[in-house]
Amino acid sequence: MSPDVSARLINFGAGPGKLPEVVLVEAQGALLNVNNSGVGILEMSHRSAPFDAIQQDAKNRIKSLIGFPDDKFEVLFMQGGGTLQFSAIPMNLLRKDSDSADYIITGNWSRQAFKEAKRLGYNVNAVEMVRRSDDGILSVMDLKDVKAAICPTARYIYYCDNETVDGIEFPSSSFLQDNLGLHSSTVFVSDMSSNFLSRPINLSKFSLIFATAQKNIGPAGVTVVIIRKDLFVESPKEELPLMLDYRVAVKNDSVYNTPPVFSIYVTGLVVKWIEAQFGTLESVDAFSKQKSNLIYQTIDGSNGLLVNTIPTIFRSRMNVIMQVKESGSEEALLQEAKQNGMIQLKGHRSVGGIRCSLYNAVTMEEARAFQSLLEKFLADLSS
Amino acid sequence: MSPDVSARLINFGAGPGKLPEVVLVEAQGALLNVNNSGVGILEMSHRSAPFDAIQQDAKNRIKSLIGFPDDKFEVLFMQGGGTLQFSAIPMNLLRKDSDSADYIITGNWSRQAFKEAKRLGYNVNAVEMVRRSDDGILSVMDLKDVKAAICPTARYIYYCDNETVDGIEFPSSSFLQDNLGLHSSTVFVSDMSSNFLSRPINLSKFSLIFATAQKNIGPAGVTVVIIRKDLFVESPKEELPLMLDYRVAVKNDSVYNTPPVFSIYVTGLVVKWIEAQFGTLESVDAFSKQKSNLIYQTIDGSNGLLVNTIPTIFRSRMNVIMQVKESGSEEALLQEAKQNGMIQLKGHRSVGGIRCSLYNAVTMEEARAFQSLLEKFLADLSS
Repeated sequence: MSPDVSARLINFGAGPGKLPEVVLVEAQGALLNVNNSGVGILEMSHRSAPFDAIQQDAKNRIKSLIGFPDDKFEVLFMQGGGTLQFSAIPMNLLRKDSDSADYIITGNWSRQAFKEAKRLGYNVNAVEMVRRSDDGILSVMDLKDVKAAICPTARYIYYCDNETVDGIEFPSSSFLQDNLGLHSSTVFVSDMSSNFLSRPINLSKFSLIFATAQKNIGPAGVTVVIIRKDLFVESPKEELPLMLDYRVAVKNDSVYNTPPVFSIYVTGLVVKWIEAQFGTLESVDAFSKQKSNLIYQTIDGSNGLLVNTIPTIFRSRMNVIMQVKESGSEEALLQEAKQNGMIQLKGHRSVGGIRCSLYNAVTMEEARAFQSLLEKFLADLSS
Repeated sequence: MSPDVSARLINFGAGPGKLPEVVLVEAQGALLNVNNSGVGILEMSHRSAPFDAIQQDAKNRIKSLIGFPDDKFEVLFMQGGGTLQFSAIPMNLLRKDSDSADYIITGNWSRQAFKEAKRLGYNVNAVEMVRRSDDGILSVMDLKDVKAAICPTARYIYYCDNETVDGIEFPSSSFLQDNLGLHSSTVFVSDMSSNFLSRPINLSKFSLIFATAQKNIGPAGVTVVIIRKDLFVESPKEELPLMLDYRVAVKNDSVYNTPPVFSIYVTGLVVKWIEAQFGTLESVDAFSKQKSNLIYQTIDGSNGLLVNTIPTIFRSRMNVIMQVKESGSEEALLQEAKQNGMIQLKGHRSVGGIRCSLYNAVTMEEARAFQSLLEKFLADLSS
């Protein structure tokens, strides 16, 4: 069997998203025999030295790319996706009778996290930073109003760094920390599922970051969690289910029970590829900006035929969303894309329109191909 | 890249365990392009029609192999391994203030499940069916004593069908149901992680069965759960974390959030392979008995040099454990095995000794190879 790369379509999916071909080819070999161990990666004991080496390597590469300030932080590999984190975060950090937390709502995923904490009976406060009017126009709250809405005794502030569905991203990963003017000991919790390892992270400004792998850094089935260990030493009042307890994951180095071995392995390969391809997270950021700007320029030059109402500084480098003004034309655009081998461009069912996701593995050439398609489409519409 | 099957060792690992080579080769191709979709299986949207087809196919093959009696039962794919089920089962089925459940303890995994339910504050009762003396001799409680120890108002009875660590397996998957003489409406919950799809299951005798994939039917990262839907309609008093709530999994057909796409895909391939290789679960059972008997015969004919004290009817077809009487010889046996390309034979750290796991993908020839090794080892010891 030889890898048939030519039959692959251009995948702009929002997640699971495209992965680098070289990683997939390496993973192919590992299915039968990983690192000359004589067993495939799916068949390897999670208590074996070769798997431990694989896991430590993935962890260390993530640490090295981000640049860990000290050993107060740990990298965990967990299961259950973002949804499990939505439950685990309040369950690990809040006492129902005395604590509260603030959630900055900027789109679908921060709202999901807020709803889950509230549903579980925690005292959480929604700060509606981004509002969408009925006709889809966005308004973004001033930072001074965000600050005023935050409760000074909140045990943590939760936000989503990049809203995959809404195409909204903070201008930098510590934009809120840097601009709200809160005390430096404020506990920030960030969902970076769809932009993790796409730009620098100043880890000293965080207490917890989580990222499901299936956007920028790997396959579905594993969630990378970076936590400040000292925050989790104090025991919550209620006993938590083992798989939701960060103390259990820290104490057992993510191997309390059988971890998602293959997903961790491929994540390690992707992180190694990021190092080799880009060198630094600053380079990934520059690349991502350049790539997404191609599409935003076309939208902004479309004389209103393509619409994105997100204020420029909050436009996502990862998920470029747009509405096609002329009704009925979206379907035609999707069809034309498909005929040109470009797939997964349909917007999320909750907002409609077009969404072009540009994760790390999507090349500049692929982004240019979509830009060209858009320009041809616009020319046809205008003629 | 051509699959290098010859470099593969004979893998007797207890889990993640060996998978069929043909499945691994098919999965290799799918990494770059699955089912001619133009995208790799790791890069496919979990909301796409091709993935839905993959998931439904895996589900339907499991249903067809077992023979589902009616549509009261559903197959779910969940994350978090057995440990998440240990938490989810009492959280979904018990009210802390009024309900209780009985756990039949036969080894390590049933005890872990019991401990987790107790730790979470549920009223659970341990029925110590198998006891191990300090010198490793097992005693098994009479069934009438098990029955006497069961609480008539227990909301469910939990047991582990095959104890991976201890090498103890019930003689059939509904042995307790068939022999305890309890009312037919008694709710039975069974952990079949290490013997799922290795013998027939009379589903009408169960309310919940779960099996982590990484032993007999696939890679780590997914747990197959079979539940009687009507049991889960009634809402528990407390709200559960979304990923632990069976109602959420049923309502969303296991795709509330991004599922472990690849693990589900490979599980489907393994189930398809079981159908093709064995036809029926009766055939898998006959094959498993024949395979494990090779090793048990050698143990029983060893004049006490190899020791397994488990009563014959409770000896596991999946995990054959043994102690080597002559002290210091175990390490020599493991070394000799390694030199002959056989790995993962060391017993679990809690019981020591040797453990030879014979999951579905382990061939008769591989079992014979280990038998021959044991016989040579015994001959060397006696000479």
